[in-house]
Amino acid sequence: MEQIVQFELTNDFRERLQKAVMEEDTAFIEGSLEGVNSADISALLQEFDAQESKYVVDLLSDEVRAEIINDLDPDQRVKFLKNFEVDELSVIVNHLDSDDAVDLLNEMPLQQREEVIAALDNEEKEANILDLLRYDDDVAGGLMAKELIKANHNWTVVQCIEEIRRQAENVQKVYSVYVIGDDGKLLGRVSLKKIILANDHTRIADIFEADVVAVETFMSEEEVVQVMRKYDLDAVPVVNVQGKLLGRITIDDVVDVMTELAEEERKLMSGITEDVEEADSVWMLTRARLPWLVVGVLGGFISAKFIGVFEQELIRITAIAFFIPLIQATGGNVGIQSSSIVVQSLANPSAFSDSLIKRLLKVFFVALLNGLVLSLIVYGFNLLTGAAINLSVVVSLALFGVVIVASFLGTITPLILDKFGFNPALASGPFITTTNDLLGLGIYFYTVHILL
Amino acid sequence: MEQIVQFELTNDFRERLQKAVMEEDTAFIEGSLEGVNSADISALLQEFDAQESKYVVDLLSDEVRAEIINDLDPDQRVKFLKNFEVDELSVIVNHLDSDDAVDLLNEMPLQQREEVIAALDNEEKEANILDLLRYDDDVAGGLMAKELIKANHNWTVVQCIEEIRRQAENVQKVYSVYVIGDDGKLLGRVSLKKIILANDHTRIADIFEADVVAVETFMSEEEVVQVMRKYDLDAVPVVNVQGKLLGRITIDDVVDVMTELAEEERKLMSGITEDVEEADSVWMLTRARLPWLVVGVLGGFISAKFIGVFEQELIRITAIAFFIPLIQATGGNVGIQSSSIVVQSLANPSAFSDSLIKRLLKVFFVALLNGLVLSLIVYGFNLLTGAAINLSVVVSLALFGVVIVASFLGTITPLILDKFGFNPALASGPFITTTNDLLGLGIYFYTVHILL
Repeated sequence: MEQIVQFELTNDFRERLQKAVMEEDTAFIEGSLEGVNSADISALLQEFDAQESKYVVDLLSDEVRAEIINDLDPDQRVKFLKNFEVDELSVIVNHLDSDDAVDLLNEMPLQQREEVIAALDNEEKEANILDLLRYDDDVAGGLMAKELIKANHNWTVVQCIEEIRRQAENVQKVYSVYVIGDDGKLLGRVSLKKIILANDHTRIADIFEADVVAVETFMSEEEVVQVMRKYDLDAVPVVNVQGKLLGRITIDDVVDVMTELAEEERKLMSGITEDVEEADSVWMLTRARLPWLVVGVLGGFISAKFIGVFEQELIRITAIAFFIPLIQATGGNVGIQSSSIVVQSLANPSAFSDSLIKRLLKVFFVALLNGLVLSLIVYGFNLLTGAAINLSVVVSLALFGVVIVASFLGTITPLILDKFGFNPALASGPFITTTNDLLGLGIYFYTVHILL
Repeated sequence: MEQIVQFELTNDFRERLQKAVMEEDTAFIEGSLEGVNSADISALLQEFDAQESKYVVDLLSDEVRAEIINDLDPDQRVKFLKNFEVDELSVIVNHLDSDDAVDLLNEMPLQQREEVIAALDNEEKEANILDLLRYDDDVAGGLMAKELIKANHNWTVVQCIEEIRRQAENVQKVYSVYVIGDDGKLLGRVSLKKIILANDHTRIADIFEADVVAVETFMSEEEVVQVMRKYDLDAVPVVNVQGKLLGRITIDDVVDVMTELAEEERKLMSGITEDVEEADSVWMLTRARLPWLVVGVLGGFISAKFIGVFEQELIRITAIAFFIPLIQATGGNVGIQSSSIVVQSLANPSAFSDSLIKRLLKVFFVALLNGLVLSLIVYGFNLLTGAAINLSVVVSLALFGVVIVASFLGTITPLILDKFGFNPALASGPFITTTNDLLGLGIYFYTVHILL
């Protein structure tokens, strides 16, 4: 991966730096990290223990230290910050944007959080933070930063530039200047490009765009992602119910939300219960994996008891057992496909989606077609390989039934989960597989019981 | 979803607009779509047929029409553009950024593409498009747009503003001005904020940031996503091997790539072979789902034949059949968990990842722990419910073996797939489940065969 970054993360450099920390070679540390992007230093410190990391960041400027800490993985950061005093934490918080500051504060124990806020010597920052702490972290209010540039619609361009100058230090990335009325209500936005190209004495009222997309504080993070994606926004203003401008959400935060949502879905689909990654300890990985494995094993045990009920049938016709995997695998596959199609729809909601009845009817027709094809294939194979005709009929009939039922369950489960505020992707995980395994067996053995 | 968009997509409005199209009520169409965001009009036209859509967009300005078409779903767009003449297409292409123009051209038949390019009356656009057509669409070169603002490092701020003015129409969103040397090589960037705040006669050389992250044309889209995410970039310059500035990739395109990658992974994990969504036809949905279902059914059929080999054992001890679902479900669950952890690592590569041996050793220990716990649980249950001791031992031993093997396969499969350029998430789908089903059966019946 070639980039025009003068710096490359290597194991050699990591070891060299670790040695420098041990030898307290401050000259090497300061020299080699000079001008390195804080995201790279964070990635590096991810490999260091808390003491080593603290030694390194203490040699850097307050601003760079705050950025590095902001870029750390939250788990790592919690361990890392245990070595910091309240006044050190307060300096870090002071150098962060209000949204990042609040994320950091939310990771602290309540008492420490209060102390850090009390130690802030920046009143505006303190007010912003106290305001943001009121919001849940998964709604627009919890994603927004208070730092933004706003201009009254009566101002001229030169007044607006003055405001940008005044806020230059607080607002790192200026995408647009938000235009408000005398009552603080959001009226629109002006791009920096327009400000550069306009005459100094042009009135903002004459150049701003009024059709600005904004979100309200209570909107869920999923909806914020959808809005920013749909309208290709790099920043979106956040308003309250009255339309008053409260903050803005920038695209980098939404990219982080998208990454988290994708990771969460991946975990749910594969039955991993905690936020682990490959680099975590054997113990953490085991703990994250066991719960759903145990559920699966319990399901398997119930299956064993269930099949046991049909012991006489199995003794009479042993070949019944041969088709257990076929029935179960198909039920699982159909269920996961169905739920994943619904999850996809829920992630990209359309203003014109069909009614539930219409959706289920469609699912039914798809299942009908799939079920028919699969049953015929299995019937053909069975005939070709000389299986008993009556057993072949039973297997194909049961398979057909399993496809229909698994499709229905796979469709309805994520919808119900979503309705009750759970992540619908849960339905694409071991949950639906375990349920479908049991149902598939039920359908199969019931068919066997009736027809054979 | 409340927004400060004056317009809301409703079924009523859609019907009213469709009626207006039929009645050729141009006044209503023009009036009601005035000022509506092109993304909303696209969502609306998604529900219209190609003729109706054409009628609507023909009433709008060239620029809005181009944006609407750019926002359409690619499937829909292909159908839609069949009703357009070459010169109409050429006007659309001319109004798009070069990257979007190339995406559009790539959807056309070769001959039409040539004709549309030939009909362009904008030489610069034509050169840009011909340049971009050389790149695959899944590398940085294929994602970049040629439109950007660059300034020679010897220029003054006022010269730079002159350049912004000159390019204002071509470059919609200006995030930074890229600074180049006399040889065209990228030297750094200046933010618009800095340009606004600088004195007119300041030299660019004195205010630009030299530590800019850039990507090379051949870098994969996954890597571009990682770079932009890691460094929180809103735009990244693209350079060739010599470091010459060729284009830039903006965050909205990367957000689209992230969405596509997440959707692709979801499909692979659930065994859906085509790019379908719930709104597609019964036929398309069936076609997208059947291939993996058939593979699953074939796997199930092989399982049936395999179990058939052990018919004598099954006749002797029927209870063997009871535990088939338990063994299989656990194998499937363990395999998917393992591969999904690897997929996660591959999506977030670390500069300091462990060696393969170390990774596999860790997987082995996790599997050991999981396997032990699950085997003991099953053994306990079997004892409690009065199953035969020797069968209970065999089931637990086989289960333990299945957990170890499924972990290993689940880890190694995505790594191999990735190595050979396939999407590793394929390993978390029916692929690994079907393989694990067969292997699990093999381990179980072999253990039965030896020990019972």
